[in-house]
Amino acid sequence: MGMDATAPEDVKTPRTERGRKTMRKLLDAAAREFGDHGFHEASISSITRRAGVALGTFYTYFDSKDAIFRALVADMSEAVKVAAREAIEPDMDALTIERAALEAFLRFAAHNKEVYRIIDEAEFVDPLSYRTHYETIAERIAGRLASGGEEGAMRAGLGEVEAWALMGMNVFLGLRYAIWADEADPGPDEVARLANRLLQQGIGPARD
Amino acid sequence: MGMDATAPEDVKTPRTERGRKTMRKLLDAAAREFGDHGFHEASISSITRRAGVALGTFYTYFDSKDAIFRALVADMSEAVKVAAREAIEPDMDALTIERAALEAFLRFAAHNKEVYRIIDEAEFVDPLSYRTHYETIAERIAGRLASGGEEGAMRAGLGEVEAWALMGMNVFLGLRYAIWADEADPGPDEVARLANRLLQQGIGPARD
Repeated sequence: MGMDATAPEDVKTPRTERGRKTMRKLLDAAAREFGDHGFHEASISSITRRAGVALGTFYTYFDSKDAIFRALVADMSEAVKVAAREAIEPDMDALTIERAALEAFLRFAAHNKEVYRIIDEAEFVDPLSYRTHYETIAERIAGRLASGGEEGAMRAGLGEVEAWALMGMNVFLGLRYAIWADEADPGPDEVARLANRLLQQGIGPARD
Repeated sequence: MGMDATAPEDVKTPRTERGRKTMRKLLDAAAREFGDHGFHEASISSITRRAGVALGTFYTYFDSKDAIFRALVADMSEAVKVAAREAIEPDMDALTIERAALEAFLRFAAHNKEVYRIIDEAEFVDPLSYRTHYETIAERIAGRLASGGEEGAMRAGLGEVEAWALMGMNVFLGLRYAIWADEADPGPDEVARLANRLLQQGIGPARD
């Protein structure tokens, strides 16, 4: 996780290791607080209590509840990216990368269920963060599809439409199989296998 | 559109044609009010003003702001279903049906942009309506996939995973190309064509 260079302007980047740890505690506490109560009911004092830091310490890092919410959305975008990236091995072809990235995302979402509520609430609390979150992911997927076409592991000419289609698949499979998971459901590996089969060959009649 | 037999209990079904028209006016006004201001800022008096009916008339049909919001989500679910269904011709095969349904949905969303904001806000205002909306659509898609497998226009064995994948594709293509549309974007027919090609043959390398 961890803030990256795109941190919003109303967030102060800590200069020391101790500062980074305190900011991490505040972001993790904010994820629980916003996840449990939503933006409007959440309070800065509850966040600092959950983080085990003094109320005044909050303002060393963030200007407002809006600021930490915005930072948290950026932080969660980064966490989703890292979870997918860590699942990718150097020798995977482009289609296998999509399968591994989806399986990793499903596992990440199952262990970080508040991520859906917080990103989804950004549509209302901070529309620009919401849109940036999805546009950034779509661009990353479009880049992978372009590489896949170049290396011959995918057909050539895939672009933005296919990237948004793929992102939508992944988001809704996460909603159903990570957030609204049921005991009888297939596991992340099986969901990713079936979704990847759709990507590999579509859902048209068998052609062999 | 129009309320169907699944109207929530706190909504009174009108018995006369005039009553049905008044209820329709209230629902259309509520769509604009919730779409413009969101649930929390919206007021019953603004809804009746937009609808051109007396404040007291509201309570002939709905118990509360929550009740009309819930009725509106059900009404929009129904409208999405009808828009897709009207695009389907009797002689279409199962894959062509998916293409026509997506194109119709993209056109519907472009002309009813508030539908995204209202359905998405239901996640926070009325979580059960939100979940029911998507579960109902997924079941309908799963039914179409099963028919497609039976008639040989799709491969056999498609199920819930593919239904949620397809729904996610459609929702995110609508978000990108209907709600966040840009002048330079491909039109609904081209977006539906590319998405349908993904469904027909996947994104794997050409196999011919």
